[in-house]
Amino acid sequence: MEETIRQILDQVATGKCTPQAALNQILGYSSVGNFAKVDTDRLHRQGFPEVVLGLGKTAEQIITIMESLQANHPIVMATRIEPHIFAKLQCHLPQAKYYPTARIATLGTPPVRSGKVTILTAGTGDIPVAEEAAVTVESCGFGVEKLWDVGVAGIHRLLCQRELIQTAQVLIVVAGMDGALVSVVGGLARCPVIGVPTSVGYGTSFGGIAALLTMLNSCSAGVGIVNIDNGFGAGMLAARILGL
Amino acid sequence: MEETIRQILDQVATGKCTPQAALNQILGYSSVGNFAKVDTDRLHRQGFPEVVLGLGKTAEQIITIMESLQANHPIVMATRIEPHIFAKLQCHLPQAKYYPTARIATLGTPPVRSGKVTILTAGTGDIPVAEEAAVTVESCGFGVEKLWDVGVAGIHRLLCQRELIQTAQVLIVVAGMDGALVSVVGGLARCPVIGVPTSVGYGTSFGGIAALLTMLNSCSAGVGIVNIDNGFGAGMLAARILGL
Amino acid sequence: MEETIRQILDQVATGKCTPQAALNQILGYSSVGNFAKVDTDRLHRQGFPEVVLGLGKTAEQIITIMESLQANHPIVMATRIEPHIFAKLQCHLPQAKYYPTARIATLGTPPVRSGKVTILTAGTGDIPVAEEAAVTVESCGFGVEKLWDVGVAGIHRLLCQRELIQTAQVLIVVAGMDGALVSVVGGLARCPVIGVPTSVGYGTSFGGIAALLTMLNSCSAGVGIVNIDNGFGAGMLAARILGL
Amino acid sequence: MEETIRQILDQVATGKCTPQAALNQILGYSSVGNFAKVDTDRLHRQGFPEVVLGLGKTAEQIITIMESLQANHPIVMATRIEPHIFAKLQCHLPQAKYYPTARIATLGTPPVRSGKVTILTAGTGDIPVAEEAAVTVESCGFGVEKLWDVGVAGIHRLLCQRELIQTAQVLIVVAGMDGALVSVVGGLARCPVIGVPTSVGYGTSFGGIAALLTMLNSCSAGVGIVNIDNGFGAGMLAARILGL
Amino acid sequence: MEETIRQILDQVATGKCTPQAALNQILGYSSVGNFAKVDTDRLHRQGFPEVVLGLGKTAEQIITIMESLQANHPIVMATRIEPHIFAKLQCHLPQAKYYPTARIATLGTPPVRSGKVTILTAGTGDIPVAEEAAVTVESCGFGVEKLWDVGVAGIHRLLCQRELIQTAQVLIVVAGMDGALVSVVGGLARCPVIGVPTSVGYGTSFGGIAALLTMLNSCSAGVGIVNIDNGFGAGMLAARILGL
Amino acid sequence: MEETIRQILDQVATGKCTPQAALNQILGYSSVGNFAKVDTDRLHRQGFPEVVLGLGKTAEQIITIMESLQANHPIVMATRIEPHIFAKLQCHLPQAKYYPTARIATLGTPPVRSGKVTILTAGTGDIPVAEEAAVTVESCGFGVEKLWDVGVAGIHRLLCQRELIQTAQVLIVVAGMDGALVSVVGGLARCPVIGVPTSVGYGTSFGGIAALLTMLNSCSAGVGIVNIDNGFGAGMLAARILGL
Amino acid sequence: MEETIRQILDQVATGKCTPQAALNQILGYSSVGNFAKVDTDRLHRQGFPEVVLGLGKTAEQIITIMESLQANHPIVMATRIEPHIFAKLQCHLPQAKYYPTARIATLGTPPVRSGKVTILTAGTGDIPVAEEAAVTVESCGFGVEKLWDVGVAGIHRLLCQRELIQTAQVLIVVAGMDGALVSVVGGLARCPVIGVPTSVGYGTSFGGIAALLTMLNSCSAGVGIVNIDNGFGAGMLAARILGL
Amino acid sequence: MEETIRQILDQVATGKCTPQAALNQILGYSSVGNFAKVDTDRLHRQGFPEVVLGLGKTAEQIITIMESLQANHPIVMATRIEPHIFAKLQCHLPQAKYYPTARIATLGTPPVRSGKVTILTAGTGDIPVAEEAAVTVESCGFGVEKLWDVGVAGIHRLLCQRELIQTAQVLIVVAGMDGALVSVVGGLARCPVIGVPTSVGYGTSFGGIAALLTMLNSCSAGVGIVNIDNGFGAGMLAARILGL
Repeated sequence: MEETIRQILDQVATGKCTPQAALNQILGYSSVGNFAKVDTDRLHRQGFPEVVLGLGKTAEQIITIMESLQANHPIVMATRIEPHIFAKLQCHLPQAKYYPTARIATLGTPPVRSGKVTILTAGTGDIPVAEEAAVTVESCGFGVEKLWDVGVAGIHRLLCQRELIQTAQVLIVVAGMDGALVSVVGGLARCPVIGVPTSVGYGTSFGGIAALLTMLNSCSAGVGIVNIDNGFGAGMLAARILGL
Repeated sequence: MEETIRQILDQVATGKCTPQAALNQILGYSSVGNFAKVDTDRLHRQGFPEVVLGLGKTAEQIITIMESLQANHPIVMATRIEPHIFAKLQCHLPQAKYYPTARIATLGTPPVRSGKVTILTAGTGDIPVAEEAAVTVESCGFGVEKLWDVGVAGIHRLLCQRELIQTAQVLIVVAGMDGALVSVVGGLARCPVIGVPTSVGYGTSFGGIAALLTMLNSCSAGVGIVNIDNGFGAGMLAARILGL
Repeated sequence: MEETIRQILDQVATGKCTPQAALNQILGYSSVGNFAKVDTDRLHRQGFPEVVLGLGKTAEQIITIMESLQANHPIVMATRIEPHIFAKLQCHLPQAKYYPTARIATLGTPPVRSGKVTILTAGTGDIPVAEEAAVTVESCGFGVEKLWDVGVAGIHRLLCQRELIQTAQVLIVVAGMDGALVSVVGGLARCPVIGVPTSVGYGTSFGGIAALLTMLNSCSAGVGIVNIDNGFGAGMLAARILGL
Repeated sequence: MEETIRQILDQVATGKCTPQAALNQILGYSSVGNFAKVDTDRLHRQGFPEVVLGLGKTAEQIITIMESLQANHPIVMATRIEPHIFAKLQCHLPQAKYYPTARIATLGTPPVRSGKVTILTAGTGDIPVAEEAAVTVESCGFGVEKLWDVGVAGIHRLLCQRELIQTAQVLIVVAGMDGALVSVVGGLARCPVIGVPTSVGYGTSFGGIAALLTMLNSCSAGVGIVNIDNGFGAGMLAARILGL
Repeated sequence: MEETIRQILDQVATGKCTPQAALNQILGYSSVGNFAKVDTDRLHRQGFPEVVLGLGKTAEQIITIMESLQANHPIVMATRIEPHIFAKLQCHLPQAKYYPTARIATLGTPPVRSGKVTILTAGTGDIPVAEEAAVTVESCGFGVEKLWDVGVAGIHRLLCQRELIQTAQVLIVVAGMDGALVSVVGGLARCPVIGVPTSVGYGTSFGGIAALLTMLNSCSAGVGIVNIDNGFGAGMLAARILGL
Repeated sequence: MEETIRQILDQVATGKCTPQAALNQILGYSSVGNFAKVDTDRLHRQGFPEVVLGLGKTAEQIITIMESLQANHPIVMATRIEPHIFAKLQCHLPQAKYYPTARIATLGTPPVRSGKVTILTAGTGDIPVAEEAAVTVESCGFGVEKLWDVGVAGIHRLLCQRELIQTAQVLIVVAGMDGALVSVVGGLARCPVIGVPTSVGYGTSFGGIAALLTMLNSCSAGVGIVNIDNGFGAGMLAARILGL
Repeated sequence: MEETIRQILDQVATGKCTPQAALNQILGYSSVGNFAKVDTDRLHRQGFPEVVLGLGKTAEQIITIMESLQANHPIVMATRIEPHIFAKLQCHLPQAKYYPTARIATLGTPPVRSGKVTILTAGTGDIPVAEEAAVTVESCGFGVEKLWDVGVAGIHRLLCQRELIQTAQVLIVVAGMDGALVSVVGGLARCPVIGVPTSVGYGTSFGGIAALLTMLNSCSAGVGIVNIDNGFGAGMLAARILGL
Repeated sequence: MEETIRQILDQVATGKCTPQAALNQILGYSSVGNFAKVDTDRLHRQGFPEVVLGLGKTAEQIITIMESLQANHPIVMATRIEPHIFAKLQCHLPQAKYYPTARIATLGTPPVRSGKVTILTAGTGDIPVAEEAAVTVESCGFGVEKLWDVGVAGIHRLLCQRELIQTAQVLIVVAGMDGALVSVVGGLARCPVIGVPTSVGYGTSFGGIAALLTMLNSCSAGVGIVNIDNGFGAGMLAARILGL
């Protein structure tokens, strides 16, 4: 710790680093506007930079935070970016890349790491959440294999893929309505399974609660669950597992 | 209607029927003690006599109602009869038969009708509810085929029985925890499927709510659901379907 | 199984079947775009083709899936199709038929089968869900008898129809608010009764939960329940029952 | 007010009233032990003395409060008194009367007033709550007519009583499970209807929530609802209506 | 009954009544369009004609039903009529009267009956629901006294009206947020109190559930509760009480 | 009391006070329009004038109430004022001040009192609720110190501020999603901590319920919680604490 | 920090402090058995030592932790101690003091500080929770004034105490069932009000949820709420407020 | 597959395998009593044998299933075994080992594999669930490091262990009440974090729902959650991650 701070101070002394940048490095965060304290230590501490959650932030706030992060990070990622927000974002950050189905915007290039996540969806309506997971995994540098629309109502679609499931490294299962796919996959797989309930459904699906409860009560062990529609969280967990 | 009443009155006139019995027949119910009005018309109207729900009734009340029904019905059935209640019941009605796993007591002999219900459970803990359904179906005169412990965590146990499922007349699927078995069976079967959520589980199973929601949101169509732990209701619905 | 596959291969050999179509037949599903795996085995396995749930799908996805199904199926059905989606759909599939109250679109001609479903609603607001059930039943080839607006607040409206209820083959009861109609009908009928809670109501109707709970707790046995507003599911269950 | 206080002071001056009793009269309450402030003004203000809710009180507390009330009130009533509590109570207050089904204990004699409440239950299991209402109504001095076990599963039992319902002054309808009886009765009656949901049921009855929601969403207007199992509250409301 | 029918038939024979009108009278309802069965017996049976619930009905349906009712009823009432619906309604039924705050439309003239209902609101935001109750009471022919904005946060506003509360015939208390006004008023009044929870509030008011639970758990006895925002139901219950 | 009223009457007699103003002073409230009873006694009784809750009120009602309050109060405050409402308000009351992030409008000048509240947010999305608290505190005359975006995902951002937390007089912690910041701050602070859950989040955040439950179950003692998004209530509680 | 550690080390060097005790002081906690890490820094950091929550701990664990705390703290407190647990505790720690209504056990003597908390209960059943608050406040060294059973059903009991409420320093309001007392008191008081919902009630009180929601939605500002039945938390918050 | 079956048949032919054992091997499950179908393929398919969930099974059923599994598996494990059940179990299976805190019984010896799981609890009351996870991990052959009682109310207890957290391979965080520990740990760690909510708490902890929601809404990414009190599931997920 002492050594790190000494080096930073040397850089300030020799003009290689501004006092403000040095302060941020010592504190481990950087105040952005008067509305955010960006966690600049996260890449070092956790292996991936802070990700901007677009929900509840203005386009201006998102732009300012992404610009601030861009300076010191190879890749910057923002989730829950609606198209009209990205339109504004693109004016200021023309190099930004947008994944419309996943509603993710990125700046920079992901690292290249070995390992692959297999992502399944029960239905077509679950694809946006699955894409959020996929883009997250890819931004962390890992590969993705996609199996869309293999829900249990026609279970032969899934059983055909039994081999893929049994040899996967990490599985992400994305399902709304009854969420039953997680239990079937959890019973076939050797590897860790991450369940993502989605808000697809109506009536007693209660915006994803039905699928969430199914997954939490899965009769198959070895399954970890994330929040409803939280493809990003599932992708990050998968990346952490592969990062071991 | 007029004709029926005239016949009853003739029987009273000729002493073949007491005035009280005639009154009950005309009203379609019979007052029992000061606590119940037994629906004596139900056998005629719906094809099966009124069934006594033991829950929340004293042993004395149950005995009195069963005795009253016994007079005019070939079979009398009471559900949710705990062993200590049946012990008292047996003193007064020694011919009563008890199904301890199903917690059902019966008097008399069921009819014999053709047709069979296939009942599946996800786990061992679901058997009591499944037995309640089975005894109900048998009391209505139909046959029962049982497949216990074929939950989706080891789906080959179920797929081995694929033939049985695809040729069944009516299926009852009894499952707690994630309740996922209903969706898989519903996707394999041609016939009507009745889902019975059970209170087996802990934590977020919420006494069967998780399984209930899974079943109501089943991605397989053609599935009807009954109350949590309501094996009796499932059995009656199956019998009505076979009775077509 | 072996025999079936041999026949398919012979057809490929003689050019009667393309390799792609042969693959789909052997797998039992067909990949559509990169977003769906249509269950082409369902007609054979369950007696009715896969039905497209419009909810959460784009117009383009719905059109592609319906076109794909149309090739091998006498009738294709899509539910939860809003008018503006159907407008797009009609441009590509001009022969499509639309049922605006039921929000269902179909291609092709239903089979003709004997049997009839009697559908009741408690109020006028429940008609859209009841129509979804009716069009589903008719698409499966069965007849429908409709009794709209016979809720229990003026029970003579229902009792006038007692004969119809007691002679029905299958009953579907559609009700929001208190959902009490199911219990009264369930107490009058001999045949299976399917309850469909609707989201009609306000305040503590909680979008149909009140009606759902009433139905699940019905004091009349022989009643199976489907998801809130799930007229389609009720229709399919009724058709399965009649298909016995 | 001034006049009332002057009279009390005169009584103190002439020894007709102790200073403590005078204080209580002026304050309108009386401190009992160090755990209660009995509302001695309630008889004057609302026409019936404060009623002791036994729930969560020790036998000693109940006895002390009842003794305190007894001094100045013609009738004293305590609800939710379990038999073992009444056993203790009877030792100190041998003149106390106990209604075991209603779980009510009383001291003194009710007034005699004209008017009658008609109380219905859906099932036998609802009788304890209905009896709580009945004893409350009688303690207020009004008559009670009881119709037990007339639930809608056999609706002819209810329709036979149509005359009684249509000529009633006030109706209390006590029902668990689906709670549907309230809607049917509400549609037949002219008079105010008070609905009391009970905790009778299992699974999704959720301890009476299902019945409560049914009643709150009743499609029949003119119905007021009280808390689950609150027979006492229903009786008091009925008495207030008759007291007009 | 026989006599009534005979008279109707005589009127048909002498041309004083069309066969269709006679049918409706005998049945007690009238089929309207293919979407409603209007309960024409309700005025006779319950003292007030069927009221049209506007929620979930099209303007066309509302107009047709109101026109149908108008023929045989002195007053016709429709609730939950939004301004844009009334605009359409007024084109067809120019004599219709609209109460915009209460969202009620009426045709005809209410009866004049003696009796008065006192209505209180906790806040300004509760007034629309209270007005729905007030217009309902007035349409039934009774008087209304209004006390708006007397919530318990400044309890002196309520205590100033203590006299009015203690001498009222029936009280309706309309409150959102904490709903506490019902308990305070219930403790001051002699007469029946009807509580109407409203959806006014935010966060944990949960659209009126908080106020509903407060009222159902009121420590003051003699209080009956109606559905959230159900001013109409409260008004009808008050009118039934006054109609005794 | 007598003395106060006598003085008011003297002022009326000498024309220093109109009879209407005198009435309001004696009653302690003032009727505004026919929709509100403004609590004019609150400044005297509680140290701060009645605050207008904009939610559910029309612009006209808000303007009328604020004008009425302005006459006798140094500062008038209205919360939940959307920009389009303020636009109307500003036409009538051009001296009004608007805080757009806090959605608060004020008239007049706050007092100056000594004391300061430290307000923290977990994220950027929580700032509007925190600003509502800040403007409330400042309107009561106290100072505010703001620490935005110090949530526990990067806990060094918070630990850097440990000194500030340990020396604060009152802390307000505003957090959505997991609401965990309250527990960490509650474990570091000596002073009272007020937790404000916000509706920031998605899926199982359930509009702030998740954060609310976290805070209510905080393992740190000495924490009081207010309604979801209730920055105003937190500010008022903080001001009351500082006002000791 | 450095200075503090140096002093500790000097004490170790001179044998005034054992190495283990020195370690605990430097870490700020002490490992107890293999099941707890007692926070020995809390007295210094927050002004009151760690309090043992008895719930879910064995008697042996509670004894070991209390003994460990006793060494360095003037007062040690444990909550949720059932009588049979205290019986075991007293064998090992005969000097322990027990407050049976509050279910609190203490060792040592509280400090003496100036300031007083006024505690109100709505009913007699709320007293145990209120006593938990009272003993907590007293253990922190402050005085307590108790007003039991002043619920709003007889509001004159509360209004008699208006003076006490208006001059209080901090108010704790303990109420189950409707929880309405908090709103009324919150509207009368100048000082901070802490609401404690209790689980007293039945049916829709839902174990205190009804009271909790009432309090969170209180129309009176300046109120902070703690968990259901959390008298301890309310007491600690009151003490922190007085400690300012 | 064909080859495997041929080998089994050869063994039957040569008497090395009974026909029954051969049947079980081909089916992949073994029928036990008439109540279970043990998944004998699971060790091969998923790397760990089927684990017996004791909940809802009789002692006899548990014994029979464990005996059946013992034949072909190196280690057999049963969870949720209460002491009185183990007492019976030990009579039949004296070599069984019992972990009373974890409520787990095992037969046989676990494998030895490299890798370690770090398990944290927030409090002492969470230890039983954490021990269930620990014994599960050890039964799978991995090591366990335990950090009990490091909840965030005294966050220095956790920060002292920062090194351990940052270098862990997999973390399991077990917490009841506010569940906040998961978010803090999730923000410090690089590795996958598994959150286990426990039912420790009271009032609004709602049996673990509060902690569950906190964890699902964690502002730290890379966290997967299991059912309330499901230490076993967390252990299995951790083992699957280490098994990569």
